[in-house]
Amino acid sequence: MTALPAIPELVAGRDDMRAFFADRPVLVTGGAGFIGSNLARALVGLGAKVTVLDSMSPSYGGNAFNLHDVVGELRFIEGDICDARETNQLVRDFDCVFNMIGQVSHVDSMEDPLTDLRTNVVTHVHLLEGLRKHRPDAKIVFAGTRGQYGRTEGLVDESARIAPIDVNGVNKHAGESYHFVYARAYGLRVTSLRLTNTYGPRHTMRTARQGVFAWFVRQALDGQEIRLFGGGDQLRDCNHVSDVVAALLLAMVSPAADGEVFNLGSKQPISLAEIASTIVTQAGTGSVTKVPYPPHLKSIEIGDYVGDYTKAQRVLDWQPRIELAPGVSDTVEFYRAHRDHYWTREIYP
Amino acid sequence: MTALPAIPELVAGRDDMRAFFADRPVLVTGGAGFIGSNLARALVGLGAKVTVLDSMSPSYGGNAFNLHDVVGELRFIEGDICDARETNQLVRDFDCVFNMIGQVSHVDSMEDPLTDLRTNVVTHVHLLEGLRKHRPDAKIVFAGTRGQYGRTEGLVDESARIAPIDVNGVNKHAGESYHFVYARAYGLRVTSLRLTNTYGPRHTMRTARQGVFAWFVRQALDGQEIRLFGGGDQLRDCNHVSDVVAALLLAMVSPAADGEVFNLGSKQPISLAEIASTIVTQAGTGSVTKVPYPPHLKSIEIGDYVGDYTKAQRVLDWQPRIELAPGVSDTVEFYRAHRDHYWTREIYP
Repeated sequence: MTALPAIPELVAGRDDMRAFFADRPVLVTGGAGFIGSNLARALVGLGAKVTVLDSMSPSYGGNAFNLHDVVGELRFIEGDICDARETNQLVRDFDCVFNMIGQVSHVDSMEDPLTDLRTNVVTHVHLLEGLRKHRPDAKIVFAGTRGQYGRTEGLVDESARIAPIDVNGVNKHAGESYHFVYARAYGLRVTSLRLTNTYGPRHTMRTARQGVFAWFVRQALDGQEIRLFGGGDQLRDCNHVSDVVAALLLAMVSPAADGEVFNLGSKQPISLAEIASTIVTQAGTGSVTKVPYPPHLKSIEIGDYVGDYTKAQRVLDWQPRIELAPGVSDTVEFYRAHRDHYWTREIYP
Repeated sequence: MTALPAIPELVAGRDDMRAFFADRPVLVTGGAGFIGSNLARALVGLGAKVTVLDSMSPSYGGNAFNLHDVVGELRFIEGDICDARETNQLVRDFDCVFNMIGQVSHVDSMEDPLTDLRTNVVTHVHLLEGLRKHRPDAKIVFAGTRGQYGRTEGLVDESARIAPIDVNGVNKHAGESYHFVYARAYGLRVTSLRLTNTYGPRHTMRTARQGVFAWFVRQALDGQEIRLFGGGDQLRDCNHVSDVVAALLLAMVSPAADGEVFNLGSKQPISLAEIASTIVTQAGTGSVTKVPYPPHLKSIEIGDYVGDYTKAQRVLDWQPRIELAPGVSDTVEFYRAHRDHYWTREIYP
């Protein structure tokens, strides 16, 4: 199979997108991580002058390999956005900021809430402080999460109650709220996309904690048994990262998105069990088994989640394009080819 | 006039309240501050074994004078709840915690968001971590704020949209949310009261930033001109601190309050202009003038706020008892008698 192109199909054919980004200085924070690096690659393809800032913290998703083949076409800064002096200097050059910094592990957030707070809130405060002082004209696209809603029922639109059930959800919501407070008070333009399960190439594969989808892929490729907690009948929206990148780009160029929050989502929610079996089928190795829910995880399990993305469809002209089977195929083939860069035996849990 | 009694009228006559608190070890964090000290005094009156923890940070409301006459009847610890080792040790003794730590200045929160984050979020994480490890059986009553709602219309009940418009509101909501995440995950029992404008004795009077009501009192007693931004027709709910203390005590003893949020409120919302003129009348000095709204404050002005407290009335059997005129009289007389302990000429802005 052929890997999906760096520029999402939804965007590739649009002259307005190319005109907007061509030669435009764009900052991607967390740009060596999963979503950030896929986004940075698309921006390079669209002709933007891309700067990536990433802490390259071993605990998170930043991975030099994610950008290794485009590193000559962008500026890469290994740095901590909480270094206020450097951040104040850096942000002067940008009126387009994709703020992709984030820690995504729900379990880690419960075990070490203060580190999650630093990664998901304090970082953003430093970015926003820099922008309000030096670039109040900037537009920022923020990566929120369905975790802000907590446990939900039925189709979830953007007016749903915010009731996170874990520390990560609390902090992500605070991080998003900071953006809108700064927008109102200082004139920054802000859009938040509340992402659901995002999968695809360039995800960290070091532990099971950063996302169940990626971990299933690793286990399958390693010929291991995927253990489904509680039977695996929980429904999830899954978006291939290419579709998420398209939404981020569309949000940046759309004035109608300023000040707005958008859910992403998929055409068809799918159970964890079906995700696992699709992965095993595509990988040709691994197996699936069902086990009881570990008690310490049960309290932060959100159950089903199905996002209503009609607002994104209406305002951003966005919809998910990549079905599960080809998306999984793209993902499995990527890690099969590059596993040495994403996991090593030594740090196996 | 006679000062209001330490034990609120609503509570004083109830045998169940005395039975609950008599000889019971109770922790009041932030207990040398405005609400905390009034609460600690009431708890002493009810026979509780009160421990007060307060950082006595010069920036906040902790004031040794607030407890000077009851200091022999309680245990006072000057300490920082962010000292995890000390907090882990301290919390072992308590299944009743009133968590009154907080920074209340909206302006300060915008000027120094990270300090507000530390005071309104990080502190609570340390307390909750200590309790989940050592006292998961504890009940915690948290002091939330109407600022969590942001700008509102009409009567605001607890189902209203959470949409804070300043950093303080974002952080206070995150702080409250942490409490409920820990409740769900670890079994702690949590009640949050979302307070509106609280006034009365023992408030910090050092700057205008901690609350407009207290500042009006200081200006009136100093014979100064109270400047009403934007005309002063914004409506506010005002609660005398004695009524707030009653609500906190009722929330602690009520199992039906576990896991619940309650708005406080007043019987009659009142304009800032009327508050100012009532204060000037009671003080017999000072004057009132109207000035345009300073631009840097306009963006974080919430406009009218009128809280619906029927849930607190139904579940906690709470209602505000102290009308504005006697409440203001009590307040003015307290500061007239003790102004040396609450403001000094040297630090006048």
